[in-house]
Amino acid sequence: MALFSMKLENLQQLFVKELRDLYDAESQITDALPKLIDAANHPQLKNALQEHLSVTRQQITRLDRIFQMLGEKPSGETCKGMKGVLKEGDEIVSAGGDPSTVDAGIISAAQRVEHYEMAGYGTVRTYAKLLGQPEMAKLLQQTLDEEGEADRKLSEIASTVNVEAKAA
Amino acid sequence: MALFSMKLENLQQLFVKELRDLYDAESQITDALPKLIDAANHPQLKNALQEHLSVTRQQITRLDRIFQMLGEKPSGETCKGMKGVLKEGDEIVSAGGDPSTVDAGIISAAQRVEHYEMAGYGTVRTYAKLLGQPEMAKLLQQTLDEEGEADRKLSEIASTVNVEAKAA
Repeated sequence: MALFSMKLENLQQLFVKELRDLYDAESQITDALPKLIDAANHPQLKNALQEHLSVTRQQITRLDRIFQMLGEKPSGETCKGMKGVLKEGDEIVSAGGDPSTVDAGIISAAQRVEHYEMAGYGTVRTYAKLLGQPEMAKLLQQTLDEEGEADRKLSEIASTVNVEAKAA
Repeated sequence: MALFSMKLENLQQLFVKELRDLYDAESQITDALPKLIDAANHPQLKNALQEHLSVTRQQITRLDRIFQMLGEKPSGETCKGMKGVLKEGDEIVSAGGDPSTVDAGIISAAQRVEHYEMAGYGTVRTYAKLLGQPEMAKLLQQTLDEEGEADRKLSEIASTVNVEAKAA
């Protein structure tokens, strides 16, 4: 939420601001994922991140649709939270080292990304319901479910990768 | 995770690095919370944040104990993720505006903090189990449960605050 040079007046305005924030977060993730995919060693992790890149693009399309419905532009916010979170993934990739341990670190960073997004989408989904926008709430719930699913998949891959990293 | 000027060699090393990262994150939260408590308007929100400040101090004590058990120092990492996430809370406070809408924004930012921590503690709890450290895993699980509880309490307060922000 690189909110707010202007005052917060009501929930509708906060809703649009937070959607813009998530839009910027998704763009940042789209930019960051290829580097993580490249650095990942375990094929299952590479695939999961690759798949999440295409899911992220669909999530951006969903946000575009919501902005159209609202008659608002998606740009105007910088998500400082996601900027910080993604720096952590960067650092792991730059450090390098034992392949399984690097993979464990990438999974850890990616799960922070997912959890951050879950918080963000949970919030705007709730706002959408309250603001009488069931169609938007449904679209946001879809993305929320996908983030949860990505997180579970990463935990599953971690159960293999972590054991290898322990033995390194 | 302001990891890694050094290479990642194994899970044990990653475990210590991530614990240091969480230690720094908790310190940042301790510094940031008083400003949020001050800016919050709804008494229930003020109380919940105040309570979370004391819970955070206990969580730091728990981490101190783990570092003692490991024979390691807690310092040495800067959590860039938490830095970014906390900037968002700052911006909401600086923006000001309708009291209930500001409260809704504070809750939204605080829930991002909780979710980020849940990801972090979930990861190190899993590492501790795998590394044959059940006592550490138990301490980390306790903190993880508290973060989940804080998140649920914030959602509960949001159900009142958001309705007021809608009507603003």
